[in-house]
Amino acid sequence: MFSDFVTILDLVGVAVFAATGSLVASRKEMDLIGFGMMATFTGIGGGTLRDVILDRPVFWIADQRYLLVCLTIAVLLFFFASHVQKRYVVLIWSDAIGLAAFAVLGAEIAQSSGASPMVAIVLGMITATFGGLARDLVAGEPPLLLKQEIYATAALVSATVYIITVDNTDIAPILAACIAIGIGFSIRAGAILFRWTLPRYRQRAGRNYK
Amino acid sequence: MFSDFVTILDLVGVAVFAATGSLVASRKEMDLIGFGMMATFTGIGGGTLRDVILDRPVFWIADQRYLLVCLTIAVLLFFFASHVQKRYVVLIWSDAIGLAAFAVLGAEIAQSSGASPMVAIVLGMITATFGGLARDLVAGEPPLLLKQEIYATAALVSATVYIITVDNTDIAPILAACIAIGIGFSIRAGAILFRWTLPRYRQRAGRNYK
Amino acid sequence: MFSDFVTILDLVGVAVFAATGSLVASRKEMDLIGFGMMATFTGIGGGTLRDVILDRPVFWIADQRYLLVCLTIAVLLFFFASHVQKRYVVLIWSDAIGLAAFAVLGAEIAQSSGASPMVAIVLGMITATFGGLARDLVAGEPPLLLKQEIYATAALVSATVYIITVDNTDIAPILAACIAIGIGFSIRAGAILFRWTLPRYRQRAGRNYK
Repeated sequence: MFSDFVTILDLVGVAVFAATGSLVASRKEMDLIGFGMMATFTGIGGGTLRDVILDRPVFWIADQRYLLVCLTIAVLLFFFASHVQKRYVVLIWSDAIGLAAFAVLGAEIAQSSGASPMVAIVLGMITATFGGLARDLVAGEPPLLLKQEIYATAALVSATVYIITVDNTDIAPILAACIAIGIGFSIRAGAILFRWTLPRYRQRAGRNYK
Repeated sequence: MFSDFVTILDLVGVAVFAATGSLVASRKEMDLIGFGMMATFTGIGGGTLRDVILDRPVFWIADQRYLLVCLTIAVLLFFFASHVQKRYVVLIWSDAIGLAAFAVLGAEIAQSSGASPMVAIVLGMITATFGGLARDLVAGEPPLLLKQEIYATAALVSATVYIITVDNTDIAPILAACIAIGIGFSIRAGAILFRWTLPRYRQRAGRNYK
Repeated sequence: MFSDFVTILDLVGVAVFAATGSLVASRKEMDLIGFGMMATFTGIGGGTLRDVILDRPVFWIADQRYLLVCLTIAVLLFFFASHVQKRYVVLIWSDAIGLAAFAVLGAEIAQSSGASPMVAIVLGMITATFGGLARDLVAGEPPLLLKQEIYATAALVSATVYIITVDNTDIAPILAACIAIGIGFSIRAGAILFRWTLPRYRQRAGRNYK
């Protein structure tokens, strides 16, 4: 049953990242094939890197549903994205859902492959951020990862909460995953709504003179 | 005999992509080592990603000829590219040959590794487009993949024609591969010569008001 | 004992590249998490690609020290980098040490995995240059790899000297590694100090008319 939950989580994460890839394709006014490619590699990029690093079979090779989800979303958004009023808002929030979900998923898969907690958390962050990073680099957009507001931190918190909870409590993994995703998503939501930031390198300059 | 054909196709694809990498190196006025690096990772990039995703041994590790081809082409173009009159034209057409050949090759290798038709077609597109995408990203050029004219579509058609033909007809795989490469190359050729495009996202804006 | 030396070399290479990633993060005024991510993927990027291509277990999965080194350096530089007077100079020289060390290390690991000399040298260059390339692409900086001064050439010489020495002489591998690193580092040092360059493509234009 937990493995069903993991698969659903994976499909949801792939779907929302595929949507962000398609929306970037719409900003760049690509054709349908461009939408399909941006959707696919944004959707499956993070998990592919995770599986390659863990030397697991890449998840979308054996199970066609992942590609079908990406391509369906690409087609839908190609024809209907223009009906969406605020596409960038949809992009940002979809990305936030995918970020939190993939962080937990990556950490879970890494840990069940035998990785230590720290390695699992790092692989959760890689899974969560790589698809979006590749999307932004290919499209020539400034990476969300490097923007002022909190971004990777949300993935870090999601993965860390999940790993600590399943390692140290009796809470069921599904519940732990939901809590961890909720916390990570809330942090990213706060960053989007209230422009939450962490202290940046420069802001510390004054302190040197105290 | 078909495996010989596959190897030859691979060497041709690696060679033409290595040439495109070298030509981008010439546009950036790199030194000989820069030519060698651009030729090598453009030539072997797509196939490397394909093999890593399929968890096959990476093709150029066991067989030195692939690296030799890349390095030979880099040296030749470093010394003789300035004699080529229209280097960008040679780049574009070499890229078109490699695109069609690698799409069929990637699809064939994926299918013979047990991938389903849809997964095989996607891996064909990945094999065909990744080397050129990496080349353009590293060199800071606008990716051919994102230009107006049809590009990835040619790879999609090549891979799809090949997979459908070998799965559903008695046509020999070599012949199917030649037909598929011919069709994909013709589509890309049309795009280069006549600026063929697919309808883009923006062009649909008017339709919303119909 | 040689395997201890290889591990130390690896940790040193990871550490200096992690430092370069952190310094780029400081130039981009990132937050602490940004420092951690830039340090980590610059530090482990080259070796990860090497291991994935060779189909070895990725080196930092089983041994947590690599991630600990990256994260420690990220934290130290986040708090203390502003005390370093000439950060770009430290970045360039750290990168030079990492470049020479990783070239030898990558070649050694590839050869001990059964790769031929040429393949081992190319994998040495990939190991040495990929982390820095990814760092520069993600941060939107012009890649060091593409700058005028000699860069990849130093990695090429390091890897080549090492492979030729261990294959053809009785010199102990540790000594061969030290010699090869020294030579590669010296070449890169010359390039930094005296702006050594190789003849570039354009500079040959005049020769055509001789």
